[in-house]
Amino acid sequence: MSSKHAQLRVNQERLWLSLMAMAEVGATDKGGCNRQALTLEDQSGRDLFIAWCRAAGCEIRIDQIGNIFARRVGINADLAPVITGSHLDTQATGGKFDGVYGVLAGLEVIRTLNDNNVSTERSIEVVVWTNEEGARFSPAMLGSGVWAGVFDLQYAYQRMDHDGVKLEDALQNIDYRGETAAVHTPVHAAFEVHIEQGPILEAEGKTIGVLSGIQGMYWYDLILTGEPCHAGPTPMDMRKDPFMGAADIIQRCYETVETFGPWARVTFGDISVTPAARNTVPEQLVLAIDIRHPDGATLSRMEQSLKAIIDEAVGRHQLTAQLVDEWRLPPTEFAPRCIEAVRGAVEHLGYSAKEMVSGAGHDSGYLAKVAPTSMIFVPCERGISHNEAENAKSSDLGAGANVLLHSMLSVMLPESAEYTVGVVGEPVATTHAC
Amino acid sequence: MSSKHAQLRVNQERLWLSLMAMAEVGATDKGGCNRQALTLEDQSGRDLFIAWCRAAGCEIRIDQIGNIFARRVGINADLAPVITGSHLDTQATGGKFDGVYGVLAGLEVIRTLNDNNVSTERSIEVVVWTNEEGARFSPAMLGSGVWAGVFDLQYAYQRMDHDGVKLEDALQNIDYRGETAAVHTPVHAAFEVHIEQGPILEAEGKTIGVLSGIQGMYWYDLILTGEPCHAGPTPMDMRKDPFMGAADIIQRCYETVETFGPWARVTFGDISVTPAARNTVPEQLVLAIDIRHPDGATLSRMEQSLKAIIDEAVGRHQLTAQLVDEWRLPPTEFAPRCIEAVRGAVEHLGYSAKEMVSGAGHDSGYLAKVAPTSMIFVPCERGISHNEAENAKSSDLGAGANVLLHSMLSVMLPESAEYTVGVVGEPVATTHAC
Repeated sequence: MSSKHAQLRVNQERLWLSLMAMAEVGATDKGGCNRQALTLEDQSGRDLFIAWCRAAGCEIRIDQIGNIFARRVGINADLAPVITGSHLDTQATGGKFDGVYGVLAGLEVIRTLNDNNVSTERSIEVVVWTNEEGARFSPAMLGSGVWAGVFDLQYAYQRMDHDGVKLEDALQNIDYRGETAAVHTPVHAAFEVHIEQGPILEAEGKTIGVLSGIQGMYWYDLILTGEPCHAGPTPMDMRKDPFMGAADIIQRCYETVETFGPWARVTFGDISVTPAARNTVPEQLVLAIDIRHPDGATLSRMEQSLKAIIDEAVGRHQLTAQLVDEWRLPPTEFAPRCIEAVRGAVEHLGYSAKEMVSGAGHDSGYLAKVAPTSMIFVPCERGISHNEAENAKSSDLGAGANVLLHSMLSVMLPESAEYTVGVVGEPVATTHAC
Repeated sequence: MSSKHAQLRVNQERLWLSLMAMAEVGATDKGGCNRQALTLEDQSGRDLFIAWCRAAGCEIRIDQIGNIFARRVGINADLAPVITGSHLDTQATGGKFDGVYGVLAGLEVIRTLNDNNVSTERSIEVVVWTNEEGARFSPAMLGSGVWAGVFDLQYAYQRMDHDGVKLEDALQNIDYRGETAAVHTPVHAAFEVHIEQGPILEAEGKTIGVLSGIQGMYWYDLILTGEPCHAGPTPMDMRKDPFMGAADIIQRCYETVETFGPWARVTFGDISVTPAARNTVPEQLVLAIDIRHPDGATLSRMEQSLKAIIDEAVGRHQLTAQLVDEWRLPPTEFAPRCIEAVRGAVEHLGYSAKEMVSGAGHDSGYLAKVAPTSMIFVPCERGISHNEAENAKSSDLGAGANVLLHSMLSVMLPESAEYTVGVVGEPVATTHAC
């Protein structure tokens, strides 16, 4: 890398101001954002983003599922672009940073290249993926999923929100049903920078998470069935009580999960019993279980362990059990070339960093199916996300954007003539639109 | 007891046929009964009972809360009566025996005395208590509670069902708002025979339960609060997960309850979490807890133990806990004289028996506050009750009615001239109405 490029840094203050300006769109009383997918608030957020991109010289195209591609055209526009981006939609009580940071950090990369008159051989694209959150239309990550070929476009169009509005009509309504085919095209490399949404980086005092992949996750409903009986007359040792099984299973899962290493997760997010009467031992208990691990083989072993724990508890407490598969998402492994680019950028910039995996799903999970991809995390306050109290430090957000910038530059190596440097303060004499 | 009385036995077949006839009123497709309090079905059941009682020569009076008193007038009508009875109302998906057995066993006692021309110095009354189940109007045992002075009549009148109908209007509607003051009057002794609603007698092969009291019960809502977080990004050891506390508390309660002896009970009948999302560690968990013991001091120690278990779990898992009192019912101790009468009757009749307490609440719990009271249990199939599949053997039901008969007779001792014997087949020359 030339010393000129080595010194490039994003404008941290400008990035922060852009984030705060976007946070005004759909701002909530409690300091968060409600900018759910394809609402009028989402439309305003998209319009604002496009206005900023046009001002930065980008070409805009919108595909059939509403994904926005803002292109800083490269010297050789035929080469596969380097892309970055995330999402602008939020949860109903979402924060200012989840998703939007990844989009505006991408814009800040373009602005920084413009400021410094850097032209690149390859085009750079900042992408806004439609309906990442899944808060309005289920499933989540529909835009990136359609683009990557995971979901059929017509399937996505038919998704309905709680009021029965189809996604296709919602897209039309905000005028974001584009002409471009929602199909993946060749990508040289893809990066996404995101707040961690967990507490690890903050707790360990690290500025950057270098991601090697996304955890695989298996979702189940465990149905435990016993015998209902009156709380008074039935002796404890004659009960067939689903709570006895559930408490046993929950505790054993917590004890066992640690044997699968620091990235293993087991979560019980919901529970219900029938008949749900205070003075009746329930007949049936339903427990939602979520297990996660970045390694597919280990995740399978965790599933076997879960089944063994259930079998043992069911035998001990004279219950019957049914473990219903709800969803299975295999682990994502990011591309070594892209991970290496992030590592190199972190080293070059001198930030403290931790190698990690993402516990949450991201658009990059689908992108990785069709493009060399990796992700960058920055700390967020107390790990809180999907919450109006979501917060992050401007310095960390700037650091993440700098890592994004240098990761993107490093995959366009000087020896392959993929980028050129102009003189600071002078426009570069190229024909592209930036 | 004269040898004549010693040989008295109820007509088991007649008792069974009466039970089956009453079961036709509000019969359900699954072989149970839906005869909820003060419905038209309850009205029909009451009308049928009164018709039978009138045919057996009884005087009927109905009090302001709809309790029915069927009186077989004694030789000395001024003496405090010996009473028995239970309830005719059922759960929405109730059975044929819960409550109705105690009422019709009382009627069978009167019929048996009539058959054998036995006159008693004291009057005998069979009582139908209003709204024992609490299925339509909450709280349960309203009729006996008002009579015993536990509830104010106006309070009871204002209770509303799910459709907003007031108990007072429902009483009027079925024409069972009586004139007699709903206030307890002197009672010489009270007995109630009931199916066990638990599995102990059947499991131990005993025919009769001799009851010394009713368990005290304390009801709580335990609210555990932690920190919500995403199921993926948050390491297991950084979570403040209410499920960790709940599983711990439930297991420790089950382990500890046995140290309080065979009559100690702990039941978790309901549970819920917020936000109840599969991929989010809940912020809050609410667990319904019911603890029971027949001894007040032991019940207090159980409560202390529960609090200690909660404190320890909350500390270990970095949660906060709030234990909300929902209801407290102290243990009922039945009158030694009445318990002794039941013991004597069992011995006289030669039935296998077990001394026990009631785990469930009964009208006799309130009666015991104002009258010498005890109860008799008979086995029911697999302990199943509050269920359309509720079942009991005719021979056991007959045995229980015989114990009731001889218990009632034995508190009217011959030496105190409280009952006289006619010659079998000949009407006794008394002036009473039976």
